[in-house]
Amino acid sequence: LKAQTETPFDAFVTDCQSRVEKALDACLPPEDAPPTLLHKAMRYSTLNGGKRIRPLLIYAAGTAIDIGLSRLDGPACAVELIHAYSLIHDDLPAMDDDCLRRGRPTCHRAFDEATAILAGDALQSLAFQVLTRHPSTTSDPAVRLHLVEALATASGSRGMAGGQALDLASEGRQLELLELENVHIHKTGALLRCCVQMATLLRPDLDPAVTRRLDRFAKCMGLAFQIRDDILDVEGDTRSLGKTGGKDAEQNKATYPSVVGLAESRAMAAQLYDQAMQELERFDGNADLLRGIARYIVGRQH
Amino acid sequence: LKAQTETPFDAFVTDCQSRVEKALDACLPPEDAPPTLLHKAMRYSTLNGGKRIRPLLIYAAGTAIDIGLSRLDGPACAVELIHAYSLIHDDLPAMDDDCLRRGRPTCHRAFDEATAILAGDALQSLAFQVLTRHPSTTSDPAVRLHLVEALATASGSRGMAGGQALDLASEGRQLELLELENVHIHKTGALLRCCVQMATLLRPDLDPAVTRRLDRFAKCMGLAFQIRDDILDVEGDTRSLGKTGGKDAEQNKATYPSVVGLAESRAMAAQLYDQAMQELERFDGNADLLRGIARYIVGRQH
Repeated sequence: LKAQTETPFDAFVTDCQSRVEKALDACLPPEDAPPTLLHKAMRYSTLNGGKRIRPLLIYAAGTAIDIGLSRLDGPACAVELIHAYSLIHDDLPAMDDDCLRRGRPTCHRAFDEATAILAGDALQSLAFQVLTRHPSTTSDPAVRLHLVEALATASGSRGMAGGQALDLASEGRQLELLELENVHIHKTGALLRCCVQMATLLRPDLDPAVTRRLDRFAKCMGLAFQIRDDILDVEGDTRSLGKTGGKDAEQNKATYPSVVGLAESRAMAAQLYDQAMQELERFDGNADLLRGIARYIVGRQH
Repeated sequence: LKAQTETPFDAFVTDCQSRVEKALDACLPPEDAPPTLLHKAMRYSTLNGGKRIRPLLIYAAGTAIDIGLSRLDGPACAVELIHAYSLIHDDLPAMDDDCLRRGRPTCHRAFDEATAILAGDALQSLAFQVLTRHPSTTSDPAVRLHLVEALATASGSRGMAGGQALDLASEGRQLELLELENVHIHKTGALLRCCVQMATLLRPDLDPAVTRRLDRFAKCMGLAFQIRDDILDVEGDTRSLGKTGGKDAEQNKATYPSVVGLAESRAMAAQLYDQAMQELERFDGNADLLRGIARYIVGRQH
C-alpha cells in the first residue's frame, strides 16, 4: 500500500533500489556454485536491502545528462560491490570491530573472519569484472576503460582505502577541521564523487563545463553525506541506524560533532547542500532527481 | 661476482627481476605521500625481493610470441601487485596466521592488522589502475579491457580468492586427489595461467592454436608449481624458504604429500613438466625461456 503523498523522487528511489537489487543479484555468483560458503557470504553482504545511495546517485546523475537507466546498471553494480566490500572489511575486529550492519550480524559474525576477508577481496575483483563485462554499458572499450580507471582510483590508497587508513590513524587524536575534512573527502567522498564521474564518462561528448559542475556537486554532497553520518552517529539509536550507534565517540574517532559541535556540523551540512544546489542552477528539470538525492542525503534519519 | 656458469636463462631471470622491481617501484605511491603508513606497508610487502615467478612467466611467454619486454611491464606489475595483496591477506591471523614472509616479518607484524588489510585492498585496486594506465602496454583500449577482465576473473571468487576459500575449508579434512587438484588449480593456478593469457591477449592476431597450447602449458605449470610448493613445505627449513616451513602439516592442510605421498607427488610434478614441455614442442628457440621457467618451477629449492 503506497502512501498517497509519494513524490516522483520517492518513486525513483524505490524503482532504482529494486533495479540495482536485481542487477546485483544477476552479477553475483549463485550460492550453489562452489566455493559455496564464499559465494553465500558475498551475497549476504551485498543483497541486504542497503539504501543504495551510490547507485541512486549514478542513476540520478545519468538521468540529468540523458543517459538511459540500463546503461547505468553496470557502473551502479560495480560501485555498490566496492561499497559492500569496504563495509565487510571496515567491520572486521582489527578495524571498527562491529557486530551489526543494516540490522543484521556483520559478515565475519554471520560467517567467520577468514571468509569475510576473502568475500571482501572477491567483491572488489567482481566490481572490475562487472565494469568490463556488463553488456548494456557502452560499446566503446575506451569508455569502459575510463570507468575501470575511475573506480580503481577512487577505491585505492589515494581514495577510499586511503581515507579509511587516515580515519584509523586519527583514533584517539584531536584533529584540526581541515585534517578531518581530508579524512572524509577520501573515506566516503571519493566513491560518491566517482559515481557522478562514471555517469559523465558515459557521455564523452558532454560540455566540460557541465562535467565540472556535476563534479563539484558530487564533491559537496560527498562531504555533506559524511557530516550527516557523523551527526546521525551521535543522534541515532542503534535500531533506526541498523548499525551500532554512538560507536564514533566510544572509539574516540574524530567526527564533525566532536571537532566543531553538533550545531555547527548541521550548519556546515546545510551550507554544502546550498553550494551543491547552486551547481545545478543552470540545469533544467532533468536534474530534479539529483536535487532530490541532495535533500535525501542531508535530511536522512538513517 | 657472477658465476662463470651463468646461462642465458639465469641472465633473463636476473634482468627481469630487476626490471619488474623498477617498474613496481615506479607504480607504487611514494612513501612520503599521505597516507604514509599505508603507502609504506604497500611498498614493504611488494618491494621485498620476491622471486617474481609471475612476472617472469609473463616476460617468458611474451618473448615466445615476439612481444617486446616493455609492453609486458604493465601486466607484470599488475599480476605481482595482486600476488602481493593475496600474500598479505593470507598471512593474517584469521587466515594462515604467519609471522614470516620472504625472510621478514609479515605485513601485519611489521605494521598492524588494520593496515595490512587496507594495504592488501589498496594493492588490488592499484593492480587494475596499472593495467588501465601503464603507457607502454598497448594503444588498443579493447586489448587493455581484456587484460583487466582476465586479471579480475583470475583473482576473484572463481579464481585465486575462491581457491583460498576452498583451501581454508579443507583444513582438518582428508581430501580426494581431485578435490585437492581443484583447490590448487584455483589458489595458485588461476593467476599463473592468467600470466600467459595476458601475454597472448597482447597479440590478438596470434593463431588460436598457439594460444591454446600456451594456455595448456600454463595450466600444467600452475599445478606443478603448487605441488612443488607442497613438497618444499615438507622438505624445506624455514631459513631457505623465507617463510615458516612445516606449516601445512601443522595446520592440517591437505597437500599432495599428505594425500598421495612424497614420492608420488614428485612423480606427478615431473609428469606435469613433461606435458608442459610437449605443448612447447612446435615452438622454436623463442620458447627457451618458457622451458627455463618450467625447469625452474619444478626444480626450485625455495
